[in-house]
Amino acid sequence: MAKVLSINAGSSSLKWKLFEMPSERQLAEGATDILKQSTVKIKYGTDQVYESATPICNYRDAVANLLSNLQTLGLVQNLDEITGIGHRVVAGGELFSAPIVIDDRVLAQIRALRDYAPLHNPVEADCIAIFRKMMPWALEVAVFDTAFHQTMKPVNYLYSIPYEYYQKYGVRKYGAHGTSVRYVSAHAAKMLRKPLAQMRMIVMHLGAGSSITAIQNGQSVDTSMGFTPLSGVTMGTRSGDVDVSLIGYLMKKLAITDVDQMIDILNTESGLRGISGISHDVRDLEAAAPTNPRAKLALDIFVNRIVKYVGAYAALMDGVDVLVFTAGIGEHSSDIRARVMQSLDYLGARIDASLNTQIHDNAGDITAADSKVKTLVIPTNEELMIVRDVMSLSQAVAQAE
Amino acid sequence: MAKVLSINAGSSSLKWKLFEMPSERQLAEGATDILKQSTVKIKYGTDQVYESATPICNYRDAVANLLSNLQTLGLVQNLDEITGIGHRVVAGGELFSAPIVIDDRVLAQIRALRDYAPLHNPVEADCIAIFRKMMPWALEVAVFDTAFHQTMKPVNYLYSIPYEYYQKYGVRKYGAHGTSVRYVSAHAAKMLRKPLAQMRMIVMHLGAGSSITAIQNGQSVDTSMGFTPLSGVTMGTRSGDVDVSLIGYLMKKLAITDVDQMIDILNTESGLRGISGISHDVRDLEAAAPTNPRAKLALDIFVNRIVKYVGAYAALMDGVDVLVFTAGIGEHSSDIRARVMQSLDYLGARIDASLNTQIHDNAGDITAADSKVKTLVIPTNEELMIVRDVMSLSQAVAQAE
Repeated sequence: MAKVLSINAGSSSLKWKLFEMPSERQLAEGATDILKQSTVKIKYGTDQVYESATPICNYRDAVANLLSNLQTLGLVQNLDEITGIGHRVVAGGELFSAPIVIDDRVLAQIRALRDYAPLHNPVEADCIAIFRKMMPWALEVAVFDTAFHQTMKPVNYLYSIPYEYYQKYGVRKYGAHGTSVRYVSAHAAKMLRKPLAQMRMIVMHLGAGSSITAIQNGQSVDTSMGFTPLSGVTMGTRSGDVDVSLIGYLMKKLAITDVDQMIDILNTESGLRGISGISHDVRDLEAAAPTNPRAKLALDIFVNRIVKYVGAYAALMDGVDVLVFTAGIGEHSSDIRARVMQSLDYLGARIDASLNTQIHDNAGDITAADSKVKTLVIPTNEELMIVRDVMSLSQAVAQAE
Repeated sequence: MAKVLSINAGSSSLKWKLFEMPSERQLAEGATDILKQSTVKIKYGTDQVYESATPICNYRDAVANLLSNLQTLGLVQNLDEITGIGHRVVAGGELFSAPIVIDDRVLAQIRALRDYAPLHNPVEADCIAIFRKMMPWALEVAVFDTAFHQTMKPVNYLYSIPYEYYQKYGVRKYGAHGTSVRYVSAHAAKMLRKPLAQMRMIVMHLGAGSSITAIQNGQSVDTSMGFTPLSGVTMGTRSGDVDVSLIGYLMKKLAITDVDQMIDILNTESGLRGISGISHDVRDLEAAAPTNPRAKLALDIFVNRIVKYVGAYAALMDGVDVLVFTAGIGEHSSDIRARVMQSLDYLGARIDASLNTQIHDNAGDITAADSKVKTLVIPTNEELMIVRDVMSLSQAVAQAE
């Protein structure tokens, strides 16, 4: 029995989960905000919760605090029970198409990719270095958000801009949510007892960030997020696709001179929040919609953009066999699911209305009896995927030795 | 019998066609470049061509030259044979959802919409004023490129950005090619002897600028061009959709400080030209593709984007009954048509390979016998649509008097 940590270092937080492997039992999960006065929260055992407010101003203190808490709460007796650590890394560029064991070279490469995720990759590299120092015995593995989409072909990942911008500056579609989509697509195949090679699948990862991915032969063919996670469908606060020309026009109207400030508005004040004016959260909008026309409009637009991407990807694959809903909204909003499916009748895709509303644990096959396309709801679990990656790489390392 | 002019005033040219109405016989067409040393070209009669190089530096001289040539070439005996003039106007904003007889108020409104088409609306307003002065007896009509798309609903025309940007600054999808799409969709209904109300149609207007439009009950439901004609599918030199974030990233890499300069690159150096590096013209790329991988790539991406938009709009309308190819590429490239259709088999849409390559006059029904969806090739004729609009408005005016 081994214990494996999955680490998600955000721009101002450290989130983690501890698993027992190979049983895949989750032992604990926690989050630390990196602030002058931080909140540390850990859930473990059967509904036990530990909370503290501590001064934690940097990732080194956050990691030290986490490792000490693991021992204090009895989640490990000794830290060397933890044999592996999997790190979520946002940008893998074209260098990484699969999870990889971290050595000095890989760490330097993750840092070098900072241009593609300025708020994330540097912090993630720092955290990796801290864990290497504090737990030198553990196998450290990097799992990239973009890696799963590296199977896209140039026809789908290239923009219609001067080709040299791709060659010189790496401007292309990288996508995101790759670990989630890899997890749920594998899980879908298991549920349907069919090899991925026989399926054209579209995964709708609908959360605070949302993306739609087309999968053929188990490989990502195309995905709605692009060079960055700003593009694609409407999201909580992100605009998704817009006409680039409105950037120049709005900068003049708003007297904004810095293009990054304008793009920041598209990242943080747009999407469902921008349309509705009240919330980025689908639950709030669903509650408000009956009496608030702009809340209703925001939901209508959200559904509309999902439907169009699903339609685009059905065309790209000349049809679709399996549709998967996942992530916060995909797992919890039966209404959004029903509304998306309403437009997909032309594909022969139908869901069973009562299965859709009565699924247990946010998981299940909601396909109607007369449907030609399977429709599944699958809770995503990026952290589990990450610790599985750690396990399979540690086996590969062991065999090689 | 009346003669009616259709006028298309571009940012540095004046194009026109003269029709005899109601016979719809085209008597002549011409173009004048507005330059210090201008070229005037007029085609008329049976293959007759008049060409001259004249100093024409402004639209007033261009119009005067045109009117004098019409008499010299015997296309009119007296100018008062021309009873109507239809002007193509690029931006109609939310003010104009149909062609309209031009009076002082309308002329002022066209000028006021300059923000939406800075290179076009002011010039078009100038030309209208010149014709009003020189031919005060003629009925002048404005026909807007955006008008046909004014039937779009907010769910399709709004971007997922702060709602006030729509309210205060009019930022929304307006679309373009409306006159062309209106013409070919009406013509498609005539060819199929079916009312437009019974059809879900997707029009692929594929030319130097390309757009895809979804039409239901004869009305535009959604279209791929947006706030400006930059967005949507890959075009000759325009990028179509890109991730907005790459604007900020590329400006830094290219040391560009003016956002308009960056957007200009997306308008003029991107699209097929940017990808291929050799040409914006599909004919050149088709010739080069067998030996030039980037020419082939440009065509692959062009087809890919068209297919995705057709798929998106099929989903939006929960299916499609009629597909229409039009404009330069849509009418002339049987290869592009065949490649687009190859991906649409899942819709039950199939074309007959020999009908596709053997159509006459770039027009015809190329549907395969076993297809569930009709596929038509229809040469567009915006100018004819414009003079038809002049005729029907002149009848309305006559009835009202």
